[in-house]
Amino acid sequence: MPTLAAAAQATGGRILGDGSVTFRRVAPVHDAGPRDLALLAHRRYAADLARCGGGALLVSEALSGIEEGPPHRLVVADPHAALIDLLPLLHTESRQDEGVHPTAVIHASAVLPESVGVGAHTVIGAGATLGEDVRIGPNCVVGAGVAIGAGTVLYPSVTLYPGSVLGERVIVHAGARIGVDGFGYVSSGGTHRKIPQVGACVIEDDVEIGANCAIDRGSIGRTVVGAGSKLDNLVHVGHNVTVGRGSMLVAQVGVAGSTRIGAGVAIGGQAGISGHLTVGARARIAAQAGVIGDVAPGQAISGYPARDHRDYLKAMAHVMRLPELVKRLRLLERRHPAEDKH
Amino acid sequence: MPTLAAAAQATGGRILGDGSVTFRRVAPVHDAGPRDLALLAHRRYAADLARCGGGALLVSEALSGIEEGPPHRLVVADPHAALIDLLPLLHTESRQDEGVHPTAVIHASAVLPESVGVGAHTVIGAGATLGEDVRIGPNCVVGAGVAIGAGTVLYPSVTLYPGSVLGERVIVHAGARIGVDGFGYVSSGGTHRKIPQVGACVIEDDVEIGANCAIDRGSIGRTVVGAGSKLDNLVHVGHNVTVGRGSMLVAQVGVAGSTRIGAGVAIGGQAGISGHLTVGARARIAAQAGVIGDVAPGQAISGYPARDHRDYLKAMAHVMRLPELVKRLRLLERRHPAEDKH
Amino acid sequence: MPTLAAAAQATGGRILGDGSVTFRRVAPVHDAGPRDLALLAHRRYAADLARCGGGALLVSEALSGIEEGPPHRLVVADPHAALIDLLPLLHTESRQDEGVHPTAVIHASAVLPESVGVGAHTVIGAGATLGEDVRIGPNCVVGAGVAIGAGTVLYPSVTLYPGSVLGERVIVHAGARIGVDGFGYVSSGGTHRKIPQVGACVIEDDVEIGANCAIDRGSIGRTVVGAGSKLDNLVHVGHNVTVGRGSMLVAQVGVAGSTRIGAGVAIGGQAGISGHLTVGARARIAAQAGVIGDVAPGQAISGYPARDHRDYLKAMAHVMRLPELVKRLRLLERRHPAEDKH
Repeated sequence: MPTLAAAAQATGGRILGDGSVTFRRVAPVHDAGPRDLALLAHRRYAADLARCGGGALLVSEALSGIEEGPPHRLVVADPHAALIDLLPLLHTESRQDEGVHPTAVIHASAVLPESVGVGAHTVIGAGATLGEDVRIGPNCVVGAGVAIGAGTVLYPSVTLYPGSVLGERVIVHAGARIGVDGFGYVSSGGTHRKIPQVGACVIEDDVEIGANCAIDRGSIGRTVVGAGSKLDNLVHVGHNVTVGRGSMLVAQVGVAGSTRIGAGVAIGGQAGISGHLTVGARARIAAQAGVIGDVAPGQAISGYPARDHRDYLKAMAHVMRLPELVKRLRLLERRHPAEDKH
Repeated sequence: MPTLAAAAQATGGRILGDGSVTFRRVAPVHDAGPRDLALLAHRRYAADLARCGGGALLVSEALSGIEEGPPHRLVVADPHAALIDLLPLLHTESRQDEGVHPTAVIHASAVLPESVGVGAHTVIGAGATLGEDVRIGPNCVVGAGVAIGAGTVLYPSVTLYPGSVLGERVIVHAGARIGVDGFGYVSSGGTHRKIPQVGACVIEDDVEIGANCAIDRGSIGRTVVGAGSKLDNLVHVGHNVTVGRGSMLVAQVGVAGSTRIGAGVAIGGQAGISGHLTVGARARIAAQAGVIGDVAPGQAISGYPARDHRDYLKAMAHVMRLPELVKRLRLLERRHPAEDKH
Repeated sequence: MPTLAAAAQATGGRILGDGSVTFRRVAPVHDAGPRDLALLAHRRYAADLARCGGGALLVSEALSGIEEGPPHRLVVADPHAALIDLLPLLHTESRQDEGVHPTAVIHASAVLPESVGVGAHTVIGAGATLGEDVRIGPNCVVGAGVAIGAGTVLYPSVTLYPGSVLGERVIVHAGARIGVDGFGYVSSGGTHRKIPQVGACVIEDDVEIGANCAIDRGSIGRTVVGAGSKLDNLVHVGHNVTVGRGSMLVAQVGVAGSTRIGAGVAIGGQAGISGHLTVGARARIAAQAGVIGDVAPGQAISGYPARDHRDYLKAMAHVMRLPELVKRLRLLERRHPAEDKH
């Protein structure tokens, strides 16, 4: 078990109280036991300090002097950020076993460096190429011709459709489907003829994709998720979409076909963006927003149809007062009936 | 084939007409053939009685005297509830075969009682422990250290991330992912550094989880789905969320991180709840509601941002009359222009 | 590589410029290289022609005379429709290998014609019957008693619950779950008792089902997805729902139990439809709409609660002007205070 002093060194924090106190894990304030380092990052959870049983406290500068709670403290700028350096002291990484499980079915023409790990019952198609240290969980299907960059991790039951391209250090969670046929038909007389979907699906370096996401391949062009972008669970990305670098798509977001999303865009949970639109860099789209027009760079929007975030919330506040407004209008009308000509 | 009399005994119902009539299955009124017991539970489907070909009718007290339809009737308080006792007369349970399929890959340190069933190509990791009579379908992945209580059933292609804990009699439908990494990053300068997700994911007794759901593990603490809660298909539950006992989350609901949902809460389909909120016991959140603030116990809310259900529907009714209201306002203004000083 | 002339013959188009020009693939205008046929279908992408490096242009009649871009052109009525006939010239179909992979686990009583293909680690249950030329990807689970019509294709990791019925030429994308238990409970005193779900799930001919969809079986009756209907990714269809012929459900749509959707209905992404409703033929439900009442045939609706599409957008425009309306109302009131009796 590490000491508070070792933790301070790893995170660049400072100590209040006794630096020789040890802890076995980091835990939320309301859940911390005597051998735990309780984490307090937001004032909203300060009330939990009363029943905090932790042996020490990991706390932000702003809250470091708070009265209640463990007196032995590790004070850092951002307790969540500190976890990145702190948790490796506690958790010895449980990597997928190296090597290829004997039940995996690997096509003879696939290229696998010795450093890769492939789980049981995973299937890897013809011509697929894996980079160094790639880890593929059990029950995955890697289609023909797929290329996977070094250090990328697939959790169990992931499907990569043929031809998909994944960069380096990509993380794909269980059940995600990448390179799916887009939703493209030519309709006439009530019949929908499928347009063959033959484009590419490119996931760039350092992208993380949540569980059970579905990302379509391009119809003829490419679908691209830009480097460093993060997708939460159950996100849908339609065909020919491009997502810029470092964008965040929270759970259950849907992006319809051919929309171009800029870099550093943040899209809240369950928001939907129609097809063939442009969303500018660093735009902020609120949870559940329904976007049916282009979004300017840096713009913050919400609602359906999505509008400026503050204007929308202001307008919705008025909506809730509409019954009262209507009464006031009716009162004025009664005082001034149409036949009243002054 | 059971008789109506046997069905009456099993369900505690009473018979109108001939109790010796037999039936091979229960079917909706519009779909029932001469050997079927037609089920009528709501007046809205009474019109289907005209073309009901059923040999007998399973009907509620309120509708028992209805004229049309089969004269031989089993009258019960709640026809759907009656199915719980009635269907076992018809369907001999087709349980997963007992025993462990020879293609399953079970780590030597996993603990499996003889009574468990494990389907083909399922993978069970180091140190996993299964209770009595656990049934695991084909192509599942049970991570290292997972604990599964007695009588729990996993349908095919389920993923339990390492360390997940499932109680007794839990049902997990195909493709659900439990214990997924939460969506936690420290962002600066357009780069998002992943905060390791090392907390637990606990699914208590008698929970049912729909197909392709995604439930995150805690970041450092725990995600908990309380005993007896039911999740429909494609539901997302973020990290550190707690769901109280006996809550119902309809399909495609999303709950963002660290939100605490009380017991007996009902959340309609596609509703979304922001992070770090508290939803009181027995609250009712309408379908598609977007909840961005705390919800009081027992409160019924809808819309975005979610408000009191009746107020919201009333306000939205006024919204649809806004074009007319604006005309009335304009009329008043014309009659009383600003320069009119009386 | 085909010539423009061969492409014109395949698609019934006409040529501008040199018909002997060859191309290796079709690509979007902004992505086309010198050996590509650039596709231009919408004026909104005409600006990309300036930097189009394509050797030839596939273009609609309306845009055929556009100045910039490659001078060698294949002019057709609808460039996307032309792909249906054009792409087979380029892509030799990479079908699933025929034959049953030796790692597949096929129950002795299942019926498989010699023409079928079954991928690695797929499991097929007792009494399942497959039609001619069925293709099943790796890691699928086909439950006991399932019937699959000729020419149907399952992508990897699909689950068909026992008893599901699929027609001919159905396409099911990776991770879709068909025939899942519906969300049916009898609740009392905070406890929810599961109503056994024993009905059927029928997917008719020529249906396409997107990745990670979830379609419930009937509770006692049937869930039916009508012939030629198309479901995008992550769609939820509840128990006892019927979808008519040729309907389109865009990504993340949810349809609650027992709702009857007519033929030729179009439902936009993330829209939700409550249970026990009737949606008339050719109705158009906008993206994110929340439908809580019946929809007339041919009606176009949007919003929550869903209303006539044009009325809704008009009303929402007024909503955004509410702050200004309230000011105008207040001004009138000030000019005519209640004590002002004229």
